[in-house]
Parts: sequence; structure tokens; C-alpha cells
Amino acid sequence: MIFRRAAVIGIGLIGGSFALAAKRAGVVEQVIGVGRSEATRRGALELGAADEVTVDAAHAVAGADLVYLAAPVDSICASLRALGPSLSPSTLVTDAGSAKVAIMEAASALPGSVTFIGGHPMAGSEQKGIDAARADLFEGSSYFLTPAAGTGAEPLARLSELVSALGAKPILVEAERHDRMAALSSHLPHLLSYALCSLLSELDAPAELAPFVAGAWRDMTRIAGSSPEMWAEIFRANRGNVLELADRFGAELVAVRAALEAGDEAAVVGHLERAHLLRGRIAPI
Amino acid sequence: MIFRRAAVIGIGLIGGSFALAAKRAGVVEQVIGVGRSEATRRGALELGAADEVTVDAAHAVAGADLVYLAAPVDSICASLRALGPSLSPSTLVTDAGSAKVAIMEAASALPGSVTFIGGHPMAGSEQKGIDAARADLFEGSSYFLTPAAGTGAEPLARLSELVSALGAKPILVEAERHDRMAALSSHLPHLLSYALCSLLSELDAPAELAPFVAGAWRDMTRIAGSSPEMWAEIFRANRGNVLELADRFGAELVAVRAALEAGDEAAVVGHLERAHLLRGRIAPI
Repeated sequence: MIFRRAAVIGIGLIGGSFALAAKRAGVVEQVIGVGRSEATRRGALELGAADEVTVDAAHAVAGADLVYLAAPVDSICASLRALGPSLSPSTLVTDAGSAKVAIMEAASALPGSVTFIGGHPMAGSEQKGIDAARADLFEGSSYFLTPAAGTGAEPLARLSELVSALGAKPILVEAERHDRMAALSSHLPHLLSYALCSLLSELDAPAELAPFVAGAWRDMTRIAGSSPEMWAEIFRANRGNVLELADRFGAELVAVRAALEAGDEAAVVGHLERAHLLRGRIAPI
Repeated sequence: MIFRRAAVIGIGLIGGSFALAAKRAGVVEQVIGVGRSEATRRGALELGAADEVTVDAAHAVAGADLVYLAAPVDSICASLRALGPSLSPSTLVTDAGSAKVAIMEAASALPGSVTFIGGHPMAGSEQKGIDAARADLFEGSSYFLTPAAGTGAEPLARLSELVSALGAKPILVEAERHDRMAALSSHLPHLLSYALCSLLSELDAPAELAPFVAGAWRDMTRIAGSSPEMWAEIFRANRGNVLELADRFGAELVAVRAALEAGDEAAVVGHLERAHLLRGRIAPI
């Protein structure tokens, strides 16, 4: 047993799946789940994700040797700022937020007696909430860990072991680098997908597009089905990277557009060919 | 039997699937397939897509009462300009090109004794070539037909019947409207997908991105796996629409970017929410 008592703040899809997986693997003995809604708390008990539930995070973390923050980035930051006085010494605190620099900054307010290591599981689901939680959600996924400078080797090893026990692959990365890579692989793609959907406003009757819709449209707009509030928050939490990559993307688009307008077929093919080859280095066709 | 002898110019994935489906449905009696490579011609015979094969399109169309042009847009336009003198009177000529205005213009060079009706099956595959051809490729797909002004009701009814026999749903649309909708639903998404892949050039080691790659990246870059040469040609064939929609997309991106930079959370959420709702009108979540 690596941890005796874990407080999971936000026992929804991610927090609930973490609790189920950690209990199943025997690396967490007891889980106290924190949920704002009664339905969530009841669901966590029924599913066996939590042994106890409460609405009071300060109460939950008292006596916990592991605190797992699974919530939108802003909520995680607010919890990190608020919970310090309630934490037991030597508690390991981690999170599952999708932008890490802002969270690492908020964590610097924690007392020196506790250790914070940022986390980001690359797992999720179109569904939300505790009812979608599954013990195998993390299996085979990358799971980023972003220790602060000066983090001890022992808590880092324990957390890596915990992540491995979930079936995920722990990968250490600096928070800054994480946020850059996340902006490139996920945050900018989401921004583009939303912007593409916005163009539907030019249609008098969007239904007119329906027979034209095939795989290309579906692929490129699927992620704009995600929660606008959640994504506005992620864009803000990783604003510098998102803005810079949006500019780079805009510059690429302007360049290929200019070649197309000029009728410079060789330059258009060159742009597409370069993109095609770069893609092949990540995702062999 | 609707057609006695069909000449399929370009007996690859689309042309071969058309031939297989039309023969299976009994709406075409005999197929002569035109392919540039010997492997394609042999494959078409082996698969039973063609009864005869040749490399000579002028020879193939002589005596055919249906000509089916299945090739990139430029090749279709070239065939339409070249084949006129070889066509028998009353021949019905159609095509499977993905941009229609340029093709309709090229078709205006055909003799008045033949009828041309543009076509665009919304079907395809990641694979290419005759070996990937299947009799059921068109089943359940939209199949756009773009008759010229003044096209007779009788050839249009025959072609619609043929398309229905393939298992596809014939949809009449003006060529101009087709190209606008195709730019929105497919051509612009492809341009964006290529541009997104171009950003990988900023990485010293693209492999660094691999653990960050999840569904969002995969979805948004899949179609950049398509042939750069083919897409450069489609962008050119539908240049006006692609350029204008690229500009509209750029303006959307600039607007949401400005709201994000200004820290105007309500405006960012407003942009994303609007896009999310518009998407929901096309592709219910």
C-alpha cells in the first residue's frame, strides 16, 4: 500500500477513475471524495470510487497522505491557495489539470512541509461526471509529471509508482515545456476547431451543409463539441503559448494562401508536401 | 439495363468502384476501363470491374453510351476538352471530380449532341487504386449532380436512376453552390489540417510531441495524410472559394485571439459557445 488515505477533490470522470484504478491496484487504501453535487457524491459511493464523501475539501484533506485535485485549472489553483493550512505535514499533493505553469505557481503558496508535483493524465472521454468513471481510463496513456525545482526524489518515485499502478506511463517534463507541447498538440487544435465551426454562421440554413459533411468535416470539428467554458479556461491558463501558436498558424495560412492566390502551384505543393512529411514524423500514415 | 457500354476513364478506386457497383446492379452491361498503368488495367480485369481495358481514352469512348470520368480535376478537364470528336451522339458524359465549376466550364466544349452532367460522389477511402475498389463504396453516400442550365430531364433522370442503383443518394445542386459547400465542408478543413502540421517545423525533435498526441491532434491532422499534389489541384480548381473562406477563417481566429489577449473571458466564451452551438446544428453531439 503506497498511500493510506487519498482525498480526491473533484470526484468526477478523472478523479473517480483515479480512485477506482488506485483502489483496484491496491496503491491507495481509502478514498474520501469531494464533490459539489449530491448526485456526484452519491455516485462515487455507489460506484465504490470513494469510501466516504463530503462537500468540504478542508475536512477531506485533514489526515490524508495524498491529495488528488481533479478539476478545471482555475479550481485547482483556488484549492491550492486555500487548502495549505488544512494539510498534514508530509502530504503529497498532485493534480490532473491540463495547463501546468499556472498550477505550479499556485502551488508555491503551499506550506514547505508538503510536496506538490503537477500531473496531467492524457486520458479522458467525451462523457463527463462520475457515472463515466472507469478503473481502466488511464491504461496505456501518457501521464505527465511536472515536479518543481528541488522536489525530492522520494515523493517523485512514489508518485511515479502510483501512476504506473494506474496502467499509465509516467513521463517527467518541465511545466513550461509541457504547456508548450500541450498548446501545440491540443489547445491550438481546439481553438481552430471552434473557429472552423464559427464559419457556419455564413449559412442561412446550416442543414444545407449536411449532405456535404463527410469525414474531413467530422474530424475537424469533433473537438468543438467540448465544453466552451472549460476550454476558455484552458486557453486563459496557457494564454502565452496559445496566442503565439495562433500567430504562427495564422502566418502559415497567410503564406499558403498567398501562393494559392498567386497561382504558384509549385509553392502550394511545397507547403502541403512539407506539412505532409512533418505529419508523417509524428503519425505514420 | 440502363446503359449498354460504359467507358470508365480512370479505373482506379472511384472508377473501379463505380464499374463494380453498376455492373452488380445490372444498370451497365459492359465496361471498358481506361488506365494509364498496366497494373491498373490488369487489376480492373481481374477484379471484374472491366470487361475490356485500354490505355486509349478516345478508343474507349467510341461506341460508349456512358462515359464516366474518374480522375483528378485537371485530368477530367483535359479529357473533356480532348474527347469531344470521339464521342458518339447521345452519349451521356459524367464525372466524379471534387470541384464542379471548372469542370462544367471545360464541359461546355463538348459537342451539342452529347449531354454532360457533373457528378461528385461523397465517398472515398484512405486507400487508392483499383485494388481498393469495392462494389459497396457508394452505399449510403450523398452523390451530387450538377446539371448545366438547359440539361434535359431525360438524361438527368437516367443518371439519377444510375446513382440510386449504386446505393447512393442523388442530390441536385448548382455547380457554384456545390463548390462553396465543398470548400466549407472539405477544402478549407484540408487547408487548415496541412497548416497545423506545418507548425511541427518549430520542434527540434518532432518525436518529443508523440507522448502529447491524443485524439485532438490525430483528428485535426488525419486529412493532411492525403496526397499534396491532389489537394493542391483541388485548391486551385476551387480557388476563389478557398481563398475567401481562408480569409473568413483568419478573421475568426483574429477575433477570438484578440479577446483572449485582452483577457475578455466573456468574449472568449461567447466565441466558443457560438461555434459550439453552430456545430450542434450540423452534427448533434
